[in-house]
Amino acid sequence: MAHISKKWITPLKKIKQLSGFVQKTHTLRAASTLISGEPEGPTVKTDIPGPKSKQLIDELSAIQQAGSVQLFADYERSLGNYLVDVDGNVLLDVYTQISSMPLGYNHPDLLQLLNDPYNVKTIVNRPALGVFPGADWPKKLKNILLQVAPSGLNHVTTMMCGSCSNENAFKNIFIWYQRKQRGGSSDFSQEETESCMMNQSPGSPTLSVMSFQGAFHGRTLGALSTTHSKYIHKIDIPAFDWPIASFPQYRYPLHENQRENDAEDKRCLAEVEDLFAEFSKRGSPVAGIIVEPIQSEGGDNEASPQFFQELQRVVKKNGAALLIDEVQTGGGPTGKMWCHEHFGLDGPPDVVTFSKKMQLGGYYHKPDFKPSQPYRVFNTWMGDPAKLLLLQGVLEVVRRDSLLDLVQKSGKKLLTGLRSFEQEFPQLLHAARGRGTFLAISCPSTKLRDDLVARLKKKGIQTGGCGEHSIRLRPALIFTPKHADIFLDRFRQVLKETK
Amino acid sequence: MAHISKKWITPLKKIKQLSGFVQKTHTLRAASTLISGEPEGPTVKTDIPGPKSKQLIDELSAIQQAGSVQLFADYERSLGNYLVDVDGNVLLDVYTQISSMPLGYNHPDLLQLLNDPYNVKTIVNRPALGVFPGADWPKKLKNILLQVAPSGLNHVTTMMCGSCSNENAFKNIFIWYQRKQRGGSSDFSQEETESCMMNQSPGSPTLSVMSFQGAFHGRTLGALSTTHSKYIHKIDIPAFDWPIASFPQYRYPLHENQRENDAEDKRCLAEVEDLFAEFSKRGSPVAGIIVEPIQSEGGDNEASPQFFQELQRVVKKNGAALLIDEVQTGGGPTGKMWCHEHFGLDGPPDVVTFSKKMQLGGYYHKPDFKPSQPYRVFNTWMGDPAKLLLLQGVLEVVRRDSLLDLVQKSGKKLLTGLRSFEQEFPQLLHAARGRGTFLAISCPSTKLRDDLVARLKKKGIQTGGCGEHSIRLRPALIFTPKHADIFLDRFRQVLKETK
Repeated sequence: MAHISKKWITPLKKIKQLSGFVQKTHTLRAASTLISGEPEGPTVKTDIPGPKSKQLIDELSAIQQAGSVQLFADYERSLGNYLVDVDGNVLLDVYTQISSMPLGYNHPDLLQLLNDPYNVKTIVNRPALGVFPGADWPKKLKNILLQVAPSGLNHVTTMMCGSCSNENAFKNIFIWYQRKQRGGSSDFSQEETESCMMNQSPGSPTLSVMSFQGAFHGRTLGALSTTHSKYIHKIDIPAFDWPIASFPQYRYPLHENQRENDAEDKRCLAEVEDLFAEFSKRGSPVAGIIVEPIQSEGGDNEASPQFFQELQRVVKKNGAALLIDEVQTGGGPTGKMWCHEHFGLDGPPDVVTFSKKMQLGGYYHKPDFKPSQPYRVFNTWMGDPAKLLLLQGVLEVVRRDSLLDLVQKSGKKLLTGLRSFEQEFPQLLHAARGRGTFLAISCPSTKLRDDLVARLKKKGIQTGGCGEHSIRLRPALIFTPKHADIFLDRFRQVLKETK
Repeated sequence: MAHISKKWITPLKKIKQLSGFVQKTHTLRAASTLISGEPEGPTVKTDIPGPKSKQLIDELSAIQQAGSVQLFADYERSLGNYLVDVDGNVLLDVYTQISSMPLGYNHPDLLQLLNDPYNVKTIVNRPALGVFPGADWPKKLKNILLQVAPSGLNHVTTMMCGSCSNENAFKNIFIWYQRKQRGGSSDFSQEETESCMMNQSPGSPTLSVMSFQGAFHGRTLGALSTTHSKYIHKIDIPAFDWPIASFPQYRYPLHENQRENDAEDKRCLAEVEDLFAEFSKRGSPVAGIIVEPIQSEGGDNEASPQFFQELQRVVKKNGAALLIDEVQTGGGPTGKMWCHEHFGLDGPPDVVTFSKKMQLGGYYHKPDFKPSQPYRVFNTWMGDPAKLLLLQGVLEVVRRDSLLDLVQKSGKKLLTGLRSFEQEFPQLLHAARGRGTFLAISCPSTKLRDDLVARLKKKGIQTGGCGEHSIRLRPALIFTPKHADIFLDRFRQVLKETK
């Protein structure tokens, strides 16, 4: 640890010298910065929000609820890992628009895309993809989305955002489940076709989707019924009465608490089994389970590979579908394209949803989840070729610049640093955890967490909270060890200044 | 009628001569075509789908359900009102991507937008608008979205598509309704904050949203519970048990059936009143009613201004909110920016949702529907500045080229033509109806409707069906009387060839 703690406090001056020196070769370049012209480090000139941001917050508040706005950004001047606000503050962005900017700001390769008139036409002519797709659509789905599909999943349905991806994945699962009940047929009875028009069974069956405490799967009414991270997301909104199982809550460090954590896995899996039985008995059988590979909004709660392996077996045994929600974990931040690829599952999950870093929403699924009839999973746009175009640009850069390797390298540096902080400041931090740069650390209280996040921002570091008392790191895939050094240096200053 | 029927059968040759002649002045230019280089008329070379489309449908079917695809388009060659497919067929598009292309294909002013590097950065840097909006966001909301807001609605929340706009509008209504129940306060009890995390009341209350038979409000699980247009959209999907009222079914022509239609209004309004009482008694009070100004997907079913006026009064009397869903009707096709502006309501509706022609989703609402706390209506992106940019371009052209006037003019020509067809082919068509170019006509059977739509396509006219037996017209706002002439000419040929 000592050796590491020396490493991460490389002084900024030295980093600056290095970054001038290492521009020449690709591997070394990755050690410094991938974006030419990126600031050398954060600069904070005003409170955040500063006076200009405050004025704009007032303006916005006159026309909508703006209480969640932290600052107004200057997206012309933001670059790479640095978010510049309207007051001229330059923040190292370790949160990247709630984990949705894979290549940071104004990446030259993405700006370049729109120099091509063909691509400009893609932006302007947005089709109803389910009816009149463009000539290049099947090829693009294959060459972009299916190129990075989780192994074993060769079907894909495109959507717009994480919530509608999960909602439509639920629908796909319900349709699949009911087709099984009909022995593989999709012949509907008159009673079914008529009753569904009035929201009544048997046409609108009382099926359920099981989810986990602490989960976040979106905020439209179906997705929200599987979300259980914070009450403010849910209160006053009607919900489906669907089963909710405990999600493992581990003791850290993991290697010192293996026996207790294994028992925790078993407790949660037994609850899942019980809920299958209970909801089947109630007449609301579980058609599928939705689970995040790492519960993100709910507090970066991990579960072991063994938990997920066993969960998949339980789901299969009960004739339901396993939906892994990779909206926040997918697209590379864990060091693999999909977080569940870390788990060594028996086979692919049935459905995997995505959005955020993938630019557009959607889900991969096994072929038997394809509905037999058209128009059952459908909407006007069914995704957006303009966003797939951006994803194409993103994935080309990820490959060319070996960004998944970079994520692993930077993530290792970050996690080692966070672990050394746990040693140095045990009263302030514990439970450093995560994969790749998808990392978090916990505080003993919400108050302390909020205080650390606020003081990190004053030092020019934009992070985010998650759960009750955790800080989450969600840097872009272009976050290098140099940026990790800056982050750790500023974080250590904040911790040292904490009384 | 005779005078009109002569007018609409202006031979194509003559139209071509005219269109060469009238390029000079703006007003006259609008009588021909607004898009330079637009084809003079449709050309059909192959079956549709043609061989190239069929091959692409096979390719797409290998990775997703592609049964709804009608053709693959060539969006490089499509222009203005003409959709060109991969087999070189040139179709006059009277359906425009399910009514979502306000300026047709490759409009020069929209292509021009992306010559501006500032706008390119808007495409590439997509923010989490609820947390880190760009410097220009409040101004853009005011100068673009609020400039065209329905009179009396000065708040706006942006979203992504029609479904999530309606879902989030429901949430806004539930939050507003519950705040009223708490006497204007938003202090939650511990029982509420805890029970909602498990989807149980009182935190997740059993409130309902009333909708109408035949309605279409989207396909995510909340929105789908208010959608009742076709069983294939709903079957096998669990739904909220919410009240569904009858929507007026009128006899046509309207002016000959006023007494019956007035009685029909009264019958439906009485049902609304009854359902308010019934669901209140059941413990599932109605927080809001959602209604389309013209039921679109469900069959272009109109209701009278008096119906909507009285509906608004009934809703108000019952302490609920009126949500008018302008996803398909909004943005100009009825000749006004918002269809409900034709109704002479006592005051603005409480909430108006939009999407499609508006490029991005969202809703306008009264100020008292703004939640007191942040994060209650929230998601990662909260809309998309890239789409607002396109809307800005669209609205500038709508103003500059007086497109709402053009819609009225072209719509009048279309409706007059459709009415003359009812006279000439009473066994094939009836109930021509609608506003602006947002028009429909009905057939005696689904089979005949499908046949007419298919044969119109063979003659180079892309229309769409709606409901059981109607044909809907959804041309772009740049559809001129010249295009109406072409449409009517081809339609008449099809009707004459119908045995």
